[in-house]
Formats: sequence, C-alpha cells, structure tokens
Amino acid sequence: MIVLGIDPGTAVTGYGVVRGEPFGVLTLIECGVIRTHARDPLPVRLQEIYDDVRGLLARHRPDALSVEDVFYSRNVRTTVVLGHARGVILLAAQQAGVEIAEYPPAEIKKAVVGTGGATKEQVQFMVARLLRLKTVPQPSDAADGAAAALAHVMTARLPKLRDLRNGELPDAVRAANRSPDRGGGRSA
Amino acid sequence: MIVLGIDPGTAVTGYGVVRGEPFGVLTLIECGVIRTHARDPLPVRLQEIYDDVRGLLARHRPDALSVEDVFYSRNVRTTVVLGHARGVILLAAQQAGVEIAEYPPAEIKKAVVGTGGATKEQVQFMVARLLRLKTVPQPSDAADGAAAALAHVMTARLPKLRDLRNGELPDAVRAANRSPDRGGGRSA
Repeated sequence: MIVLGIDPGTAVTGYGVVRGEPFGVLTLIECGVIRTHARDPLPVRLQEIYDDVRGLLARHRPDALSVEDVFYSRNVRTTVVLGHARGVILLAAQQAGVEIAEYPPAEIKKAVVGTGGATKEQVQFMVARLLRLKTVPQPSDAADGAAAALAHVMTARLPKLRDLRNGELPDAVRAANRSPDRGGGRSA
Repeated sequence: MIVLGIDPGTAVTGYGVVRGEPFGVLTLIECGVIRTHARDPLPVRLQEIYDDVRGLLARHRPDALSVEDVFYSRNVRTTVVLGHARGVILLAAQQAGVEIAEYPPAEIKKAVVGTGGATKEQVQFMVARLLRLKTVPQPSDAADGAAAALAHVMTARLPKLRDLRNGELPDAVRAANRSPDRGGGRSA
C-alpha cells in the first residue's frame, strides 16, 4: 500500500509518500514541499499546486491520498485560502481515481504519536522513528505530509488487527495462504 | 467583450455569460446553474463544478471570468467548503488563460444597482433590466452569476468614461475613427 500524504498550504504544501505492508515495515519513498510565490496571484499558485500534485500522483501511483482536514482556524481568511488549495488537491486525486482520506489534525497526531494533543515536535520525532530516518524530514511541512500518509497507513491497518483479535486471520495472510475457509490455515 | 460571471457554491453554482460593447447594449448569452448532489463526496462535487466551468469556458471563449469574492461568513465551515469550489473554478480559468476578476459582494451590488447595500431583490431587478429581460433569471443563483458578469463589464467601462471626461475620446471611438492624433475627429 502506497499513500501520498499532503499537508496543504498556499505558500508551502508539504507531502510525503509512504509505503506500508500489513505487519511489514513502513518506508518513506519521497517527501518534500511545493512552494509558491506570495507575489503571484492566487489562480497561478493554485495551478502550480495542482500540477505538482498531479505529477506526484502520476509518478508514484499511490493507492490513496491522505490530506489534513482544516475547518477550524482563528484566521478565517487564511482558512478560506487554504480551502482553495485543498480544492485543487482533492480535484487532482479525484481525477486520478485514487481513494481520498481526510483526517483532522488531532487524528493524525493520535495515529502517529498516540495522543491527539501531541506537540508538533512529538509528531516529527515519531515520523522519523516510524520511518527509521536518522533525522526529521526538513522543512517541517514535509514531515507533516509524511505524518498524514502515516496516519492513513496505520488507520487502514486497524480493521485487520481487529479481525485478528476476533480469531480470524487478516486478509493479507488469508490471501497468502490461498485458503477459502474463514478459519485460515494452509490448505496445500 | 464576453464575460463569464460565477456565483460559486458547492450545492448550486450560478453562472451568467454577458456580452457588452463599450457604449453598446448588454446581452445575456446564457445563464444557469451547476448543481451537485449533497450526498456525493466533496471531491466528486468539485470535479463536477470544474468540468462544467471548463465546458462553459470552451463553449463561450470569454475574455474574462468574474467571480464573487467570499472571505467573510458567519459559518466558517460553509465558507471553507466554498473556498474549495472557488479553488477549482479559479484553476479552470487560469488553465484557459482568461483574465480573472474577483469582486466582493458589495462591489457587485454597487456596480449593478449603484449602492453596495442593495438587497438581493434589487440586484435581480437590475440584472433583468440591464439585460432587457422580461423576467428575472431563475433560479436566483443564475441571476447572481449574471450580476457578477455585469459587474465586470461595467467596471471595465469606467476607464473609458474617465478618458471621455478628460476631453479624450474613448479607445473604441478612436479605433473606429482610425485617427492617429489624440484629439480625435475624422481624419478621412
């Protein structure tokens, strides 16, 4: 499973591409930022974000795009401009036909650190740790993009862990065993 | 000059296409609404709005897109979702290479009715009157789209009127007279 995580912004949009197998290791394929110029008109900046996200989707062909949800801010104007950026990001993903997942900031923190009240530094530390990186990805927006991707990979795993607790083998193990019965076990 | 005016919304986006010559009549070429389903996910709705706006741009080849500016609302969530819709509309216009004009609601009212404090009904009445329509375009969102288009046509005229007040002939008249000197007058 490959997930493109995005932390949207008009000036700086962070992204991270993470590969995760069920019960396997998590690998950072790429992370970085899309920068736009404050002096450019908004439509120009939106086109740059859209083109770059389309480029990432074409290059990595992710199974899902995971994006931070932002419906709460002290500065309404900033939040609305951010809405424009999210709009073209969601459009690019919809056009590419990938699954789209949206997570509020607290859910991303909870999935990565274990608590929705984690600090920005705690999130960055856990991103580096989970992806076995020697240092935190820079700039921090890139780490935030990777965190959004991690949140989706780890949330997508949950149903499988739940199956296991109920005494069922997870889908991936069942598929590997090619066993038609729900109890699992090698049939050949 | 052909202007595509848009009143953005996620459920209903109104639009109007207006042709206006300097000192000439104003003509409504088309108006209507783009409707999306509330039960569809936001990315699906954004793609519908984007595709339909692209269709309008391709069909009418306007000189400009005029869109209502919305950075102030009591409901932040509604305003942010609206930001998503505006984002894909601005993207479509930018990709088509047309001039993009954004007007706050009060400026549209002022351009169409003469006062920024005009009621919705007064705007609709003046839209019908300026475009010599027997009835107000329905639904009202279509009239709002036409109002955005009218605002840009009428604002674009202002510099020419200013030239005239300064004792100069407007560009269009100069061009028609094919006179090279600034004082105007027929040279042939």
